[in-house]
This record gives sequence, C-alpha cells and structure tokens, in this order.
Amino acid sequence: MEIYLDNSATTKVCPEAVNEMVETLTHSWGNPSSLHKKGVEASRVLENARARIARVFSCSPDEVYFTSSGTTANNTAIFGAVYANRRRGNRIVTTSLEHPSVNEAMKRLEEQGFEVIRLRPDKFGRFSLNDLYSVINKNTILVSIMMVNNELGTINPVQNIKTAVMRAGAPALIHVDAVQAFGKIHVKPSKIGADLISVSSHKIHGPKGAGALYIKKGVRIKPYVVGGGQENGVFSGTEAMPNIAGFGAAAAELGDIDASFEKVRGVRDRFIEKVTRIPGVYINSPSDSLPYIINMSVTGLPSQTVVNSLSERGIYISAGSACKRGHDSEVLKAIGLPSDRTHSAIRISMSRFTTDEEMNETVDAIAAAVSRIRR
Amino acid sequence: MEIYLDNSATTKVCPEAVNEMVETLTHSWGNPSSLHKKGVEASRVLENARARIARVFSCSPDEVYFTSSGTTANNTAIFGAVYANRRRGNRIVTTSLEHPSVNEAMKRLEEQGFEVIRLRPDKFGRFSLNDLYSVINKNTILVSIMMVNNELGTINPVQNIKTAVMRAGAPALIHVDAVQAFGKIHVKPSKIGADLISVSSHKIHGPKGAGALYIKKGVRIKPYVVGGGQENGVFSGTEAMPNIAGFGAAAAELGDIDASFEKVRGVRDRFIEKVTRIPGVYINSPSDSLPYIINMSVTGLPSQTVVNSLSERGIYISAGSACKRGHDSEVLKAIGLPSDRTHSAIRISMSRFTTDEEMNETVDAIAAAVSRIRR
Repeated sequence: MEIYLDNSATTKVCPEAVNEMVETLTHSWGNPSSLHKKGVEASRVLENARARIARVFSCSPDEVYFTSSGTTANNTAIFGAVYANRRRGNRIVTTSLEHPSVNEAMKRLEEQGFEVIRLRPDKFGRFSLNDLYSVINKNTILVSIMMVNNELGTINPVQNIKTAVMRAGAPALIHVDAVQAFGKIHVKPSKIGADLISVSSHKIHGPKGAGALYIKKGVRIKPYVVGGGQENGVFSGTEAMPNIAGFGAAAAELGDIDASFEKVRGVRDRFIEKVTRIPGVYINSPSDSLPYIINMSVTGLPSQTVVNSLSERGIYISAGSACKRGHDSEVLKAIGLPSDRTHSAIRISMSRFTTDEEMNETVDAIAAAVSRIRR
Repeated sequence: MEIYLDNSATTKVCPEAVNEMVETLTHSWGNPSSLHKKGVEASRVLENARARIARVFSCSPDEVYFTSSGTTANNTAIFGAVYANRRRGNRIVTTSLEHPSVNEAMKRLEEQGFEVIRLRPDKFGRFSLNDLYSVINKNTILVSIMMVNNELGTINPVQNIKTAVMRAGAPALIHVDAVQAFGKIHVKPSKIGADLISVSSHKIHGPKGAGALYIKKGVRIKPYVVGGGQENGVFSGTEAMPNIAGFGAAAAELGDIDASFEKVRGVRDRFIEKVTRIPGVYINSPSDSLPYIINMSVTGLPSQTVVNSLSERGIYISAGSACKRGHDSEVLKAIGLPSDRTHSAIRISMSRFTTDEEMNETVDAIAAAVSRIRR
C-alpha cells in the first residue's frame, strides 16, 4: 500500500497524460518548427495543448507560452519584465515567502543594482494590503507575488495588486506565481489583473519538464533564454513536445475545480479534527488556506524523523518543500513560528484523488510514530 | 511510406527511450529532491541516466548536468562562463556560424558591453587556426565554437582551441556546442580539451525536452536559470525526469559510434554519386564533413519548393535548419555561396538507421521534382 501525500512537490502522472505522451513520442515526434508534414503534425499537437491550457486560464491561446518548468516560467517572467522595463524605474516589490525560483531571481537582480522590497507576511503568511500600498511607487517596475504559498497553502489577495499599482501610477508589470494554485482554485488573469502568470505541469498530474507562462496580450518582456525564437521568442529551444502534450492532457482532465476544492476541504477538515487530538500536534496552515496543503508540527519530533517513519509505512509526506532540501524552512521562520514548531514541521499535500481512508491511515501512522518515539 | 531525413532537426524517439519514459511516468514518478521512498526511487533513475550520458562522454557522472534542451545547455554554459569570469577580461571568441542559442547569447553579451569576436569561416565552413591564434588574447574569458555545424555538417578542429588559449595565457573557458556531434563522432572532453560541452537528447533518438552540459571537474560557472538549486545549482527546476530517463536510454543504445559512422558514410557517398547526376545539383557540404548531414542546392528550385514536393511523397527534409524557419541561411551566406545556391539549398540529415533504399527513393523524388518544375 502506498499513500502519496506530497502533491505539492510533484503529482502522479495521470493515465490520460501518459497516453498522450506515448502518442506524441511514437507518432507525432516531429519538430514543430519543421515545415514538412512531420513538423505540421507536431505543431498541431503543440497548439492543441496550448488551447487546453488557455481554457483553464480562460484566456486566449496566444497568451500562453510554454517553458520547461515552473522555474523557467518564473525566471522568464521576472528577468523578462525587469529588463524590458528597466528604463522606467528601479524598484521591484515581492514578498519574503516566494519560491526559490522567484527569490533567487530577486537576489540576482539586487546584485545588478535593482531595489527589491520584500513584504513581510503576517502570522498566516499573507502580505498586508497596507504594506503593499505603501511600498509601490512611481519607480516600481515589477510586482511579483505568489498566489498560493507552497509550504503553508496560504492564499494571497493577489487580485488587489492591480489597484495598488494603478493608484501609485506605477509602470509596474504584475507577475503572479500560480504554480500551487493552478487547477486547484481559479486562476483567471482577467480577475487577478496580472500581466504574467506562471504555472507548472507536474503539479497538476502532468509530467515533469513543462511549464507555461501566461503573458497578457500587448505586454512585452525581454526573452531570458535565447536562441531559435520558439514560443514567439519568449522561450527558445525545441519545444518539449511529449511533456507539453501531457501537460495539455492533464489540464483537460482537471474537471470541476470548485467541486474538487469542496471535496478536498471536507477531507482536510476531518483529518485536522482527528490529527489535532494527538498531543503536541499543531496546525501551521491558516484555516482559510488552500485545503490541499496542510502544514503542521508534531512538536518534539524532528521533521525528518516523521517523514522517515511514515515513508517506512508507505506514506509519503515532506518536511517543508522539496525545492530546497536540507534547509530549515524560511517560510515558517518568516511567519514567526518558534523553533520547536519549525524543527518539527511537516507538510501534507493532497490531490483531488486523496481519500478519507488515506488520511485516516496517516493519522494512525503519525500517532504511532509519536507514541513510539516519545516513549 | 515515410522517409525521414531531417534528423538534424529532430530524430524519431527509439523504443528503448519510450519504454524507459513510460516506466518513469507510471512508476518512478517521484520528485528526485523528495526525501521519502518515491523521491529516492526517482533519484536513482536520475543518477542512472547521468551515468549513461557520462559513459558516452567518457567522463565522470558528476561532470554531467541535465538541462531542458540543447538551447538551455548552451545558454547556461555561455552566460555562466562569462559571468563567472567577468573580472578577468572582456573578450569572447566565437564564430559567425553558431547555432542561434549561441549566437543570440553572444548578441546579448555584446549589448552588455562584452567584446565578441566572430571568426569568419573558410568556404567549407571551418574556422582557421591562424585566425583563432590571432584573436585570443590575455583578455579573453570564453571561447565558444561548435563541433559540427548543424546546416553543413562541417567538423571544426575544436581540439586546437586549448593550445591557442594556453599560448595566449588567456583565462578563457572553452565551450563546445556538440549538439550535432554527440553520438555521431566521439565527443571526449579530455581529447577536445573543453571545459564545457553541450548536448541534446532529441538529436540522438531521445525525447525532446532534455539536454546536458558537461562541466569539467573544478570549473565553476554562474548559474543562469536560478531557483531550488537542482543539478548542483547549475540548472534549477524540478528535473524533467521522463525525458532525462529517455535521454539516458537513447545514449545507452548508441552502440558502436565508429561502425555507424562508416555505414552512414557509405550511404552518403552512394547517394552523392547518384544525386549529382541530376543537372543543377551541387553539394554544399565539404567532402570531409560529418556524413550524416548533406547540404546541397538544386539550383533553379527554391528550397521550400523541393521540401514541399518531397513532403508530398512522404520524404521529409529541410531547407537549412529547423531552428530559424523562414529566414535565409546565415550559414550558407557566411561561407560565400552565391544567392542561386542559398535560395535553393536543402539539408538532408540521416540517422544511423537510414538505408540506401531510402536514399535512392530520395534521389528519384528530387529528379522527379526537378523535371516537373523545370519543365
């Protein structure tokens, strides 16, 4: 028996995605840039996938640009927006809780002389609107804030960024990292008011090796990865066709996002009700966070001890995120958790397929680990 | 019947690669950075693929870094070497015949104030050693030259770069784009004397969506794509696991490179003997070029006319490279071909699986196109 509860790190690839990939690998394996029949065939697969992603965004297909990962989508958006806009100002606004692919890009931009303002989160991991209004000025060229935090599940009020930018009269482009949100809550550019939105295939049961960047019609960014000019110049390199096809298939399988959300919320609530009966267990995620992600601490037990103990029973969870292993969580430190909570934090991240039975097994496994180790 | 002769644009994915990918997608789909069993399992697949690529290079596995494409390998090598070395000089030496993923990176570096010297090729598309010696100076921080030209098949004497760098006492790192060479001729870092070598999966019957960068032990470059620090910090982003596994499988299937080379040379020679009997046909590739690539002109017939005419018969070739479609070949212009030859140039690129029968069909199809269109 295997219970996989590390869906924020990666998801199991759905059969529809695998099938589409095998078809692409064995039949439509041409280069979409080739002008002969094999190329045209591959190009059709590419455009079909683009349309499928666009449908989830509720945007036009020509606003969707494929990249190789969420990381390259974030790098492309951030460097691309800043370099395109550099003559209009020098300030960048972000938060201290971003994914490393945003955070490291910001450090790089700081080295280059840009001023990066990092909003500090409140104890739920959300940025405050007052802070946002106070730091965006006429000199601000980019605001980049994640929609759902990958460790806590906190949902940020990103739809308020646009008003703040407009009130300040800032030339800023708005970038939203929606990697953890896409397919779980609605990520509609028109509602969010974003110019740039990054998403990733392998968080929605597609394969690793594909990401996408929404770029609002009319918005220009400077390409970061350069070469043959694929993806309308936004991301060069022969398109990762099997992955893009699989990403499209996974997107087409998302189904009713609201129904899945409600289902997962129920599973989450029943789990929390049970797991918090175990002495020393604390939930770190705010109650109105994305229900798919539950960050909690089993005080007294180091994170990795719990992860290993559950792994032996075939239950796979994580200590923080998979993206920077070995380090203490910056996110949990930033929201002011004491060290006994950060050292013992674990992240359980569900998919729309996760069941009450799996979560009950997990409660039992945590309880067993606690009583064995504390004894 | 389909005859695919556009193997320099992309190759048909071999069954061994497809199988390995399906296994990775359906079983070992974990995130290699995860610390539980699913992660460890994925990490093993990753390291197995790395060892397989290292075997083809004859290098140590920890000198192999996966990227998402040949383009990202080239970008990572070039920007990474220059930014790591920027305090030691300002000159970069390359040629005017590089792939767009090198050439566009060079333009970007020029914008940033670096001095880029582009060696002009002789009429065979090779750089001259005298030119190389004369331009490398103490201020040179990078030399980047492709091993095999993607349009002509010309093999460059890249093994001479190291001597030139040493004689000049230059702090330069040596980068070789070996995307078209890997798996067709030996690409041994120790023999080439390179610090950085880029290769791509989909040119050796692996899937699109994976590349690799050889980095000589001890050589440091500054990461270009930044984030979670995967691939030892060299290329961030969750590894494109199914592609990397497929890349490894394709590399393991390469077999005897020398035997394939001899076989393909025979097929090429017999083809050239026949095709040049058609009036107005000229071979643009030098006779000692990589036999897998045949660049030729059917004077009087625009490239795309021949490509389309053959495509209708199920024979897939290209007009120049697939990487910058719609543009006249910079490479052919650079080697000084007259416009009637550049306008009518086609590229036939074989794989180790290409047969005499397929090439004979191609000769017939070209002859038929010529007589139909000229009439």
